[in-house]
Order: sequence, then structure tokens, then C-alpha cells
Amino acid sequence: MSDVSPLAPAGFPELPPIAGLQLATHEAGIRYAKRADLFLAELAEGTTVAGTFTKSLCPSAPVDWCRRILAEGDGTARAIVCNSGNANAFTGRAGDTAAALTAELVGEALGVEPDRIYLASTGVIGETLPEDALRSGLPALAEQLDNTSPAAWEAAAAAIRTTDTFSKGSSARIPGTAAHIAGIAKGSGMIAPDMATMLAFVFTDLGVAPDVLQAALSTSVATSFNRITVDSDTSTSDTVLLFATGEQIDDEILSVDDHRFADFQAALDDVLLDLAHQIVRDGEGATKFVQIEVAGAESDEAAETIAFAIGNSPLVKTALAAEDANWGRIVMAVGKAGQAADRDKLAIWIGPEQVAAEGIQLEGYSEERATDHLRQDEVSLTVDVGVGTGSATIWTCDLTHGYIDINAGYRS
Amino acid sequence: MSDVSPLAPAGFPELPPIAGLQLATHEAGIRYAKRADLFLAELAEGTTVAGTFTKSLCPSAPVDWCRRILAEGDGTARAIVCNSGNANAFTGRAGDTAAALTAELVGEALGVEPDRIYLASTGVIGETLPEDALRSGLPALAEQLDNTSPAAWEAAAAAIRTTDTFSKGSSARIPGTAAHIAGIAKGSGMIAPDMATMLAFVFTDLGVAPDVLQAALSTSVATSFNRITVDSDTSTSDTVLLFATGEQIDDEILSVDDHRFADFQAALDDVLLDLAHQIVRDGEGATKFVQIEVAGAESDEAAETIAFAIGNSPLVKTALAAEDANWGRIVMAVGKAGQAADRDKLAIWIGPEQVAAEGIQLEGYSEERATDHLRQDEVSLTVDVGVGTGSATIWTCDLTHGYIDINAGYRS
Repeated sequence: MSDVSPLAPAGFPELPPIAGLQLATHEAGIRYAKRADLFLAELAEGTTVAGTFTKSLCPSAPVDWCRRILAEGDGTARAIVCNSGNANAFTGRAGDTAAALTAELVGEALGVEPDRIYLASTGVIGETLPEDALRSGLPALAEQLDNTSPAAWEAAAAAIRTTDTFSKGSSARIPGTAAHIAGIAKGSGMIAPDMATMLAFVFTDLGVAPDVLQAALSTSVATSFNRITVDSDTSTSDTVLLFATGEQIDDEILSVDDHRFADFQAALDDVLLDLAHQIVRDGEGATKFVQIEVAGAESDEAAETIAFAIGNSPLVKTALAAEDANWGRIVMAVGKAGQAADRDKLAIWIGPEQVAAEGIQLEGYSEERATDHLRQDEVSLTVDVGVGTGSATIWTCDLTHGYIDINAGYRS
Repeated sequence: MSDVSPLAPAGFPELPPIAGLQLATHEAGIRYAKRADLFLAELAEGTTVAGTFTKSLCPSAPVDWCRRILAEGDGTARAIVCNSGNANAFTGRAGDTAAALTAELVGEALGVEPDRIYLASTGVIGETLPEDALRSGLPALAEQLDNTSPAAWEAAAAAIRTTDTFSKGSSARIPGTAAHIAGIAKGSGMIAPDMATMLAFVFTDLGVAPDVLQAALSTSVATSFNRITVDSDTSTSDTVLLFATGEQIDDEILSVDDHRFADFQAALDDVLLDLAHQIVRDGEGATKFVQIEVAGAESDEAAETIAFAIGNSPLVKTALAAEDANWGRIVMAVGKAGQAADRDKLAIWIGPEQVAAEGIQLEGYSEERATDHLRQDEVSLTVDVGVGTGSATIWTCDLTHGYIDINAGYRS
């Protein structure tokens, strides 16, 4: 429906095969015509799993399902199945039934227990998943399973899209091993993560014990998916799942003190941050990729709150769209954040150009140089609030007519 | 600059004279050409005052000034002076100096102490008020003082506008007395009050002791200015001031137990709610006036938080602009509010049409009837979150291309 975001990467990356993982996609006609809307990843026996989910108090049925099997299970998983076009959220008992049916049908096809099968759905809220499409589509989906070729990865990333204008993938090699991490994500609007955002499925053929895997995931999510915002709206369906097949390692990582853990964590951080940035680059209507750095706050949490107050402000975001160095709106956003800030010590930079110091406009500040910076596709705002040592960096996009076009015209 | 909001009232109301009050306006050329940008109200000796101000941690110099003289003074005031075009915010020591100079010049002209003179400024943040314009404009302003004729009221309301597309005024008669309440307000963007919003100056010729006046004001503001939002952005300059001249009453109201207090409070509530609604009706780019009612929450505060989560959601606001009964976005907003809600008891109405009950779409729900309601200029959303007895009503507007036009094009 939309043109590709001007901030999109040049193309979909070439993702590596992950041993112990097979991918499939299928066109089930749940909502969209002429495109795949089902995605399946089959995982080798013994694959461990970790997950983070939306903090929404009205979560979707698949989020409830995943939370339950993650809490009650032994930390292993055999598959993840995802549909696009319908979020299976706010669908009451019918939603739970559709989720259970999905796991049952895929379980039958793969010969595994339903409670080893993770689920995700993304799309319209409030409509029941059509049972017919599931009954015909899911067995057909399982027949498409194939290795993790670059083309299979790209098809998988495409199958989970909704308003996304490009497919999102990222990978890293884990140093000193034959193992990789590779993952796909979707997300464009309703992006204001709170523990996790939208959908991301990430796989490694390293072996990692479930609790260690969860620790690594929670750490990475805190500084990647939880540090982005498009429109301050939090999805009912936010889900990040990380699977470790263990096929490329002799003995699994059992502790965060394992000497291999730091390399794994660093590679995971890279992949999740790359995917999170791709979601911002596909922010609905976005024309600018914006980094916001706050320093000098009372704590890191305070810095994050201030950074999100700036990044979610419609007045800041429209000024960025207009390439207008209207830094008064940044002051406004700092002021409304409710966190300690010393107005008379506040310092502000637009890109490399310092605008204000000690609470007033700097002598020698050049609005022209600031505007030149804002004319670029990638811009940065930096604020020192002058009260402590807390800091945080977040990423967001501008607010344009494109956002209104997409959301006043399309029921996503 | 903009056409008048489609939600504007038919015209400016005819406001009554307030005994003990004189108004003046003047064109000082602070920023705008060919329009008055200074407003002065002189108040009779003995006038009492109450005020509420922005909770922004980066308040403007006039807000600091008002807070100080309100706290240190004896509860009386002799004047309020306001300029538009420049907010005198984030201007450091130069801002404090400009504020003090304003009070000094007006004090000299009127023969009263500067610390009886209340100040307000609205407009661009970060620029110093031009001293020349103050030195020539303020004495000239004081020479324009005139009675509170309907025309003088309308000129006063016009002089304090910035991006406003119409002038805002309201009045009420206090039953059983010869006294009135009359006030003016400005506000259109950067509207997400936190204790007070934007500028409103309200006058009565009743006599009310300062602490009683403050109690009445705080009560009224809580359910009027503090219950509106345009864009979730909180101004550095939000100020509501209430003055009581006492010229139309023999003995002043000294206690909230006074039998006349309830009538005064009710009249004040009416005037402030009317002014608050006029600000929403002039919300930047607004095409719909939206009432959001939340019931069944754990507390009234929880209900207010949920109502603002709905009212500030860009996805809800763009759906309203599109007249799209996309109630899944309401569920999303309830879910992200962080307040207790029972997904399986949630009920939703669009206007009179019930959409959902007990967590699922109602059988017999008519999207056509819901859409018919959304086609009107004034629409309502009602949500029962099913966990308690807390309730709250707020008012907002939709999010349209007009908001982007105004804020990506105009440095306000």
C-alpha cells in the first residue's frame, strides 16, 4: 500500500543458515490478498527459548499463550508460528480457542506437543481468526518447511509484515564459534515498547540454558526494543522470542559466567539494536531517523523518561519533519517530563551544533548550521539537564502527513 | 494565519462589565504585525487573587514571578499584564529582568507596587523580550484603560491569542447577587495541562477571601482545564488567574461554608469548563470535539489516566479524524494506560452505539451506526473497564493534517 520508507536499508540482508532451524511461509488469505500471511519456524529437539512480551493490560490471546507455556514449560520449544492480518486481540474466549487450535494443528503436522509451540499474531484488533483459514492453511504451511536459505529468511520476514514498508532482518556471527544469531522483526506503527515491542523472532545455533538465554534477552531488549518509539502507542501483541538450537556447539552455555557468554551477549545486542533501528526507520510516515541522547539526569531511568518525553512530543516531531531548529519545543518537553532538571544549567545540541548552555541560547549559536544538520536523513538531539550523571539514548522518527495518511486511511 | 476552526462558537460572547475592573490593549510590535499584543487589566484596591500554574520544571519567567508574588504577598492584586508573541521562557536571567521591568513600568504608570502586578507571556520560547518594545509599549498600554464593555472584552481576548483561530470568553451571573464572573482564555496547541493550562484570566466582582478564592479555583481547574488535551504537550507558561474585586458585594465570602459559596463555585465551574472546551474546539487542526468518559476504574485518578491514554493516542485521534470506528485502537490505549482493567469485562460505546461488552464485540453491533455518530462534529467515546467505581470525563480533539501543517510550518 505504501511506498518504501525513504529511511529503508538498501535491501534485505543476506541472513546465514541456523543449524536446527527450518522456515516456512504460506498464503492462507486471513486478511491480505496475494501474499503470504503465515510464518512457521520448526526448531530442533532441545532448543531453548526466552521471551519478553507487551506490558499492555489487554494483551492478545497469543501473548497470553506464550506467557503461559514459557512459565509452565521446561524452557524448550519446538516451533514458532505467526500470522499477519489479524492480531487475535480482544477476541475473548474465541481468541483463546483460536490460539489453542493453531498450536494443535501445527503440533499434529510436526508431531510435537502443542505446548512447545509458540504463537504470535499481528494485524487488526477485535476480529476472530477465521477457523477455516487455520484448518486449511496451517497443515499446508507445515509442508513448506525448508532450510534457512537467504530466500527463505526474506520470505519469512515478508510474511509477518502489516503496515511495514520493508522486511526487517539482521544477523551476527558469534566470535570463536561456528554459531550465528539471525532474526526477523516487524513493526511500523503502535510502537512504544514497554518490555518488548511488536514482533521479533531471533534464532541462534549456539546452545544456551533457558535462564541464561532469558537473562541475555532481557538485557538486550532493555537497550534496543525498549528504547524506540514511533507514536507512543503500545501494541497489545508486542513479542520478542529468542531460540537457541544448540546445534553448533558441543556443550551449552549454562551460566552468565561462561567465558563465551560475553561474546554471545554482544552479538545479540548488535542484532536486536539493528532490528529495533529498522523498525524506527519504517516508522509510519517517517522521513527522519532521530537519535535522542539525554545526560546529566538524576538516574538512567530519569534520563530515559526525559528522552521519551522529547521523542514522543508531537511538537518536537513536527518541528523535525519541518527541519526547523525550534529548540524551544525541546525545552518544553524536558519541562513536562516530570524528572529533575535544572533550567539554569540546561544545555542543548542539535547534531554537533550547541544551541544553549546554562539555560540560555549560546552566543555564537548558528541556526543555519543547526538547520543544515536537520536537513539530513539521520539527525540527533542531545540534552544535558545538569543535575546528575544519569544518561540514556533512544531512537525515534519525525511526525509527518504520511503518519496521518496511513492511520486515517487504513485499518491496521 | 489559519482559517477559523470549524468547531468555533458562532461568535464571541457578550461579556458583562465587572465592577472594579478596567481593560486595555495595545499594539507594541513584539512579534506580530498589525495587531494588539499587549493586554492589561487594572483591578480595584482590595481585589483578591488565586492562581494555578504549569507543573513544567522549565517554567517561564512570568510563571516564576506570579508564583513568588502569590506566595509572598497578602492575597491581593492590582493588575495583570500579558504579552503575546514571546513566552519569555528559557531566557535565563534576561527573562527575569524583562519580567521585573514589565511590572515596574506598569506599576509606575498605575501608581502601584510592582509586586501587586501579575504577569503572563505566550509565544515563542527562548527569545528575550525586546526591552524597547516594553519601554514604549507598556506606558502607552496603561493609557488605554477603559471600562469592561463587550468590545473591550473582545479586544482583550484577541490580544492574548497566538495560534488561536478564535477569541475565547465566557461569563456567568452569580445567583442572588448583582455580581458576575467573566473571563478570557487562549490556547490551541501545547495543550496537556498539569494543574493549569495555557492562559486564562477570570474576574468576578464578588468579594472572596484569598484562601477561599484559591480553593474554588483549584476545585474548578481540576475538572475543566486539567481535563483537556490537544497534543499531550505541556506548556512552560500555563497560567490560570482568578481575581475578585469585591465591588458588587457588601461583605466578602470568608469561608467555603458561607451560604453564597456554592453558587459562586457552580458559576465558576461553568465559566472555566466553557473556556476549557473552547480551547479544545480550537485545538490545532481539530475537526472533531471529542468527549471521553471512562467508568468502572479502580479510582477516579485511574479513570483519568485511562481517559488521557485514549485521548492522547495518535492512533485513536487519527481514527477519529477519519470517522473510522476502529475500536481496536481504544482497546490498545486502555491496555497501555497501566491502570487496572479487566479485559474480559471491558465495554465500549461509540456515541450511543455499544460496540463491545465483556471483552468481545457485541452481537448486533452496527459499525454503520457507530460511523454515523463519528461523522458529527461532536463525538463521544465511553469505556467501562470493569474493575471498580472510579470515573472521569475528559475532552480532546482529533489529529489531522491541519495539526502537521500548523506545527511543521509555524514557529509558535
